[in-house]
Amino acid sequence: MAEKRGKIVFVIGGAKSGKSGFALRSASACEGRRAYLATAQAFDREMEERIARHKAERSEEWAVHEEPVRIAALLKEIHPVYDVLLLDCLTLWISNLLLGERDIEAETGAFLEAVSACSATLFIVSNEVGWGIVPDNALSRKFRDIAGSLNQKIAAVADEVYLVTAGIPVKIK
Amino acid sequence: MAEKRGKIVFVIGGAKSGKSGFALRSASACEGRRAYLATAQAFDREMEERIARHKAERSEEWAVHEEPVRIAALLKEIHPVYDVLLLDCLTLWISNLLLGERDIEAETGAFLEAVSACSATLFIVSNEVGWGIVPDNALSRKFRDIAGSLNQKIAAVADEVYLVTAGIPVKIK
Amino acid sequence: MAEKRGKIVFVIGGAKSGKSGFALRSASACEGRRAYLATAQAFDREMEERIARHKAERSEEWAVHEEPVRIAALLKEIHPVYDVLLLDCLTLWISNLLLGERDIEAETGAFLEAVSACSATLFIVSNEVGWGIVPDNALSRKFRDIAGSLNQKIAAVADEVYLVTAGIPVKIK
Repeated sequence: MAEKRGKIVFVIGGAKSGKSGFALRSASACEGRRAYLATAQAFDREMEERIARHKAERSEEWAVHEEPVRIAALLKEIHPVYDVLLLDCLTLWISNLLLGERDIEAETGAFLEAVSACSATLFIVSNEVGWGIVPDNALSRKFRDIAGSLNQKIAAVADEVYLVTAGIPVKIK
Repeated sequence: MAEKRGKIVFVIGGAKSGKSGFALRSASACEGRRAYLATAQAFDREMEERIARHKAERSEEWAVHEEPVRIAALLKEIHPVYDVLLLDCLTLWISNLLLGERDIEAETGAFLEAVSACSATLFIVSNEVGWGIVPDNALSRKFRDIAGSLNQKIAAVADEVYLVTAGIPVKIK
Repeated sequence: MAEKRGKIVFVIGGAKSGKSGFALRSASACEGRRAYLATAQAFDREMEERIARHKAERSEEWAVHEEPVRIAALLKEIHPVYDVLLLDCLTLWISNLLLGERDIEAETGAFLEAVSACSATLFIVSNEVGWGIVPDNALSRKFRDIAGSLNQKIAAVADEVYLVTAGIPVKIK
């Protein structure tokens, strides 16, 4: 008997737009066993504080998995154990892939497969990063292109898409 | 007899999105004594021209208060005198606070208090600044975080929120 | 007998937002003779690949006109020959004008005239570039101001305006 695919909710927004808070509140309103998949690594003081703030905002009812790179494998492994998964965030993962010189095509392909096979309700948080002027270095342009392409692919398979601005979610799908 | 709190209208958008023009037209449609609170300082040629353009767009029916830093105190002082106040813009104020090495927490806290106590209809204009790639310097990241957080707090207390793109306002609250 | 002005559809969005794809699909759904007006010049490897990808996405049913600078004149010349025109994109054209030290005021004025006189259904694609932090160089700020102003003017005369995020179009006019 094939497991039914869970609902996919995609939450995008700018930096400090309230997207993580909205995703967390929405996911917390769902019943069942919950896990938070954090792509953030505490690699410097500033980032450590950011992660600590995010952790403080999560209640004790959440299991936490920290995985900067292998989220496709993690998702495949743990999705049967949970009812609700919250992945925060895609863009940091892309940044980790680039810095680790991983095979972007293969990793994002495996991730999309894992998303489509996920039996839990899956909330995915991502940044909108392409609304400024063209960055002056090639790596930033590459990052922006990968993030934009992946956001499109996730939005295409998502059941619901929310754009968050100044803490206000607007449902666009 | 306690003064009734006035309506708060929050207008956000990117640079040159038409947000100031929309806020000015909306505020001009309100009856009564009006004042414009400008946070811009004419500190260089480019900024001087920008301010001059903004001034030219305001009719004579507006009193003008220019205050780069102490807007919380100004708002508390003048709100009983006016029916309509237009504050343009929050992000420039945050920039002035950072450059002046002010206590951000205290200043934004006092401002939020002043906003909640304002008896006039209050239009607040702010920039959306977090939709590009992560800035490569810590001050810009700090600015972006402060602006995003304050935008969320203002949107939370606002009665109406408009997102302006290419001159077109979209009501999101 | 005066030619009836064609419908103007304005499509804006961030980098890699899916705006070109949406514009192309929408324009392809219109009947008649179609032309694609590309403002992109293949001036480096990265841009060449980008243009090649865009070309691959266009079917053989489209005539292609590549014009980095003189789009006002081109539009005036060719609009009677086609039923559907797709111009992609405005911001690259502005960038070409700035790099070529053209008279921005005159060129954008002529373009707006050509748009208003166009008898074909005209799809115009543009980038939203003002949602990041203030760029640290004057040319980028100038570019951002010109792009934002022109986007406002096109949106004002457009019959329909779509904002595209993660491949999802939202009709805002």
